[in-house]
Amino acid sequence: MKRRRPVASAAKARSPARADKLALGQLHKHLGYFLRRLQIWVFQDFIQTLGKMKVRPAQYSVLLIIEANPGRSQAAIGQTLGIERARLARLLHELERRKWINRRASGSDARSHCLHLTADGEKALVRIKSVATQHEARLADYVGAKRHMQLMDLLRDFG
Amino acid sequence: MKRRRPVASAAKARSPARADKLALGQLHKHLGYFLRRLQIWVFQDFIQTLGKMKVRPAQYSVLLIIEANPGRSQAAIGQTLGIERARLARLLHELERRKWINRRASGSDARSHCLHLTADGEKALVRIKSVATQHEARLADYVGAKRHMQLMDLLRDFG
Repeated sequence: MKRRRPVASAAKARSPARADKLALGQLHKHLGYFLRRLQIWVFQDFIQTLGKMKVRPAQYSVLLIIEANPGRSQAAIGQTLGIERARLARLLHELERRKWINRRASGSDARSHCLHLTADGEKALVRIKSVATQHEARLADYVGAKRHMQLMDLLRDFG
Repeated sequence: MKRRRPVASAAKARSPARADKLALGQLHKHLGYFLRRLQIWVFQDFIQTLGKMKVRPAQYSVLLIIEANPGRSQAAIGQTLGIERARLARLLHELERRKWINRRASGSDARSHCLHLTADGEKALVRIKSVATQHEARLADYVGAKRHMQLMDLLRDFG
């Protein structure tokens, strides 16, 4: 099996060759441990890939959800992504500061806001998605194309 | 599919019913997103389950590795688990403070230390493993026993 490392060498220490490893003992029975290890690889690669644009994974997720569901509320987005209210508020504030999104007061409820991408946000997201696609290809290469597809099938119900 | 929630209701907001959810858009193509969502469920359930014993997932992993590999160095453990040196040092310090592990100077290198469980550590780990087994059963119930096994098979190479 290929043991490709994330894009930058900073992540080196987290992807040791199997030969250097100790026995996992009972850890070998815990799915959460293996989920976490692969997820760390993914985040490292993703953060390094999108670091140039100063976009974090959670920001990217929120931009995609707003793109796919223009005009929806902060609450609906938070519920979809499982992001807590205070954290999402900070995240949206940052995206607004960069002029990538705007909030318009909802007609039905003055306290609620509809979220939209701005023209700048749409332009930025085109570039971000293109880099994210490269990241996904690296991940598919790391785990193998077939396993990538199988994992997707098995995990999609939980997102 | 079952949409069981983690053990305590604090995690409720992170496991919304699918019906409440917005379209995922291009997020639907990112394996990392789905890994992360399931991993969050796992950590929440695990942290709630082991919270009574004040044991965090990383501490549990380290205890299991020391149990399975008595007398090995901090460096070998860090490399196996992909934990950075400074973070592992803090974690081991905490386990030592609780008298669950001890470090004996290595014969070959005075700066290096061999890690062992103490008798107290062994006793605590028996209890912790029993609770962790209940957590794993809940996870298997959440994703389904077959999927649990399939995911294990697909992910084990990356731990």
